[in-house]
Amino acid sequence: MPPNVLVVGSGGVGAIAALSLSLNGKCNLTLVVRSDYDKVCSSGYTINSVTYGNLDGWKPQNVARSVAEAAEQHGPFDFVVLTTKNIPDGPAKCEDIIRPAVTDGLTTIVLIQNGIGIEVPMVEQFPNCAILSAVSRIGSANINCVVNNLHKDLIRLAPFDNANIDPTVLAAKARKFGLLYQNDDRSVNEVTIEDKAATARWEKLVNNAVFNPITAISGLDINRCQINGANAAIFGPAMDEVYAIAASEGVEIDPASKDKYLHIADGLFFSSSMLVDLQKGQLMELEVILGNPLRMAARNGVSTPILSTIYEMLKMVQFRTKERLGLVSINEADYKQESSDEYPAIFARSQANSGN
Amino acid sequence: MPPNVLVVGSGGVGAIAALSLSLNGKCNLTLVVRSDYDKVCSSGYTINSVTYGNLDGWKPQNVARSVAEAAEQHGPFDFVVLTTKNIPDGPAKCEDIIRPAVTDGLTTIVLIQNGIGIEVPMVEQFPNCAILSAVSRIGSANINCVVNNLHKDLIRLAPFDNANIDPTVLAAKARKFGLLYQNDDRSVNEVTIEDKAATARWEKLVNNAVFNPITAISGLDINRCQINGANAAIFGPAMDEVYAIAASEGVEIDPASKDKYLHIADGLFFSSSMLVDLQKGQLMELEVILGNPLRMAARNGVSTPILSTIYEMLKMVQFRTKERLGLVSINEADYKQESSDEYPAIFARSQANSGN
Repeated sequence: MPPNVLVVGSGGVGAIAALSLSLNGKCNLTLVVRSDYDKVCSSGYTINSVTYGNLDGWKPQNVARSVAEAAEQHGPFDFVVLTTKNIPDGPAKCEDIIRPAVTDGLTTIVLIQNGIGIEVPMVEQFPNCAILSAVSRIGSANINCVVNNLHKDLIRLAPFDNANIDPTVLAAKARKFGLLYQNDDRSVNEVTIEDKAATARWEKLVNNAVFNPITAISGLDINRCQINGANAAIFGPAMDEVYAIAASEGVEIDPASKDKYLHIADGLFFSSSMLVDLQKGQLMELEVILGNPLRMAARNGVSTPILSTIYEMLKMVQFRTKERLGLVSINEADYKQESSDEYPAIFARSQANSGN
Repeated sequence: MPPNVLVVGSGGVGAIAALSLSLNGKCNLTLVVRSDYDKVCSSGYTINSVTYGNLDGWKPQNVARSVAEAAEQHGPFDFVVLTTKNIPDGPAKCEDIIRPAVTDGLTTIVLIQNGIGIEVPMVEQFPNCAILSAVSRIGSANINCVVNNLHKDLIRLAPFDNANIDPTVLAAKARKFGLLYQNDDRSVNEVTIEDKAATARWEKLVNNAVFNPITAISGLDINRCQINGANAAIFGPAMDEVYAIAASEGVEIDPASKDKYLHIADGLFFSSSMLVDLQKGQLMELEVILGNPLRMAARNGVSTPILSTIYEMLKMVQFRTKERLGLVSINEADYKQESSDEYPAIFARSQANSGN
């Protein structure tokens, strides 16, 4: 019997992962689809992919409304592939999202997600499961079941260390998943198996930890920031901090790469995912992109004045979103203070509508 | 003949300044009122003031639609009192706003505005005019001709050094304006004449340069920031930078005051003027509150990693507002680049709608 694979998350990356695994025909595939469930069951996806071509009405082998339903109807799973956003400070931690579909000692968990340190809670929660860490470069968006994939599907895949599982077993799991995903023709897609995921993750973070937070705060796309001098004033200095944290974690990124990363979005007027999330009123992947790296920096004694300032700001921005979403609430009356002065003089003019 | 005084800016501070000068009856007063001109001429202001009491239908002695009209109909002026926001990177510099009403060698210019370094362009543009620098603590808002003034009208007034004018003459101008503004009963309002405005300005900046920018970026009121730990994480460290810049300019602010400034808004859930401006889609007083102090820091070799990071962000936020207001425009086609790769792989997932 071919391996049983579940893909969780049916955004641009998840839909393409399900498609690739299906087209290769080496596994039984189930895709969890929440809000679009009825639409996918009735009319499938429209795929416009530079990797896999154009398809009309493509339907995954199995579709489930939830992870629990997938487990009940199509489990147990040899592989659970997680492609959702990773927001540990949000309402659902990734470990909890996939838990119903994870079988202790059987399931291998594949994280096709951004960020640093995302494997750690998985190993903690599922100590007898192999964790594979995948960094995807694909450029894919799923809007109302129309999937536009603009870039060749490239995946750098590595096992994540687990004290309970022999490294050779972990490596074998990575090779096995690679075979399920890799097309026979490597010009189509390309899965590269590496010993460790850290290098791939940190290299991607050079852009993600810098462009994402700064464009989210400024409300500008990357190019508009650059037109305002951001490369010299803040993108570059912030990238230096990412390189330094990576080095403190034993990952040396070639300093010459900085120029490439600084100019990677030139001319594209690209809005980062954090900016898009913020504008949509959604939570951002703040902790895995910035919080975890900064906790490593603090542990390793790396100075990060720029990224730390940005992180403190974005934690408050994230709080604003949480309050709007009803995830937290503030009862102002709890904070009212006795005051000898009903209005602090320091705020002169501050409330003034001095519009003239 | 009593001195001829023009007040420019009819927001919360300007309306109260006009009221105070009128009630004291020691000058001829003209107030420039732009958008509310017809309303003020017909029905006047409703004043709810802890300083000057409650008045219905109060009208200034003279009202003008513009500075130019005021100059034509009621000039020349002995004093021009400027109470508008000060946004040198905006469409109208303060020097240009008042220019039609300034008579060389006659007019004394009184700046009742926030920020640091605001006197310098005035001296440059009007080298034969005395400049008085006033720091107001009043807490006053004018919304549709209803002026709510919550705090006693306190003004710290000082002459600003001018190589062309004898210091004793400058000091006399300050005393003279103080007499026009100061009520006979000092329990009502309180004008304090000081030798230099720097101390008053820097003391006010401890709050303004910290609470304003950080609340603008976070989109939260001061208390909500504090509930997120901002006092320790960012407000306090940012204030330390303000104290250091002030010291480098020769202004020693008592370090013990920091605790007072940190807690000055406790329980008020107060939205700073920058946050309010940003939310209204208006330009912020960024350069006089943050840009000028940071230029002094750079000149004096003071390290300001937090405030500089915040400033770089807010310059981009300000750019966003300018673009929305049509003050700047970007032609994206000018920046498009030849690329071997139609979509940079680094942005994998970034555009993905991984909603599931």
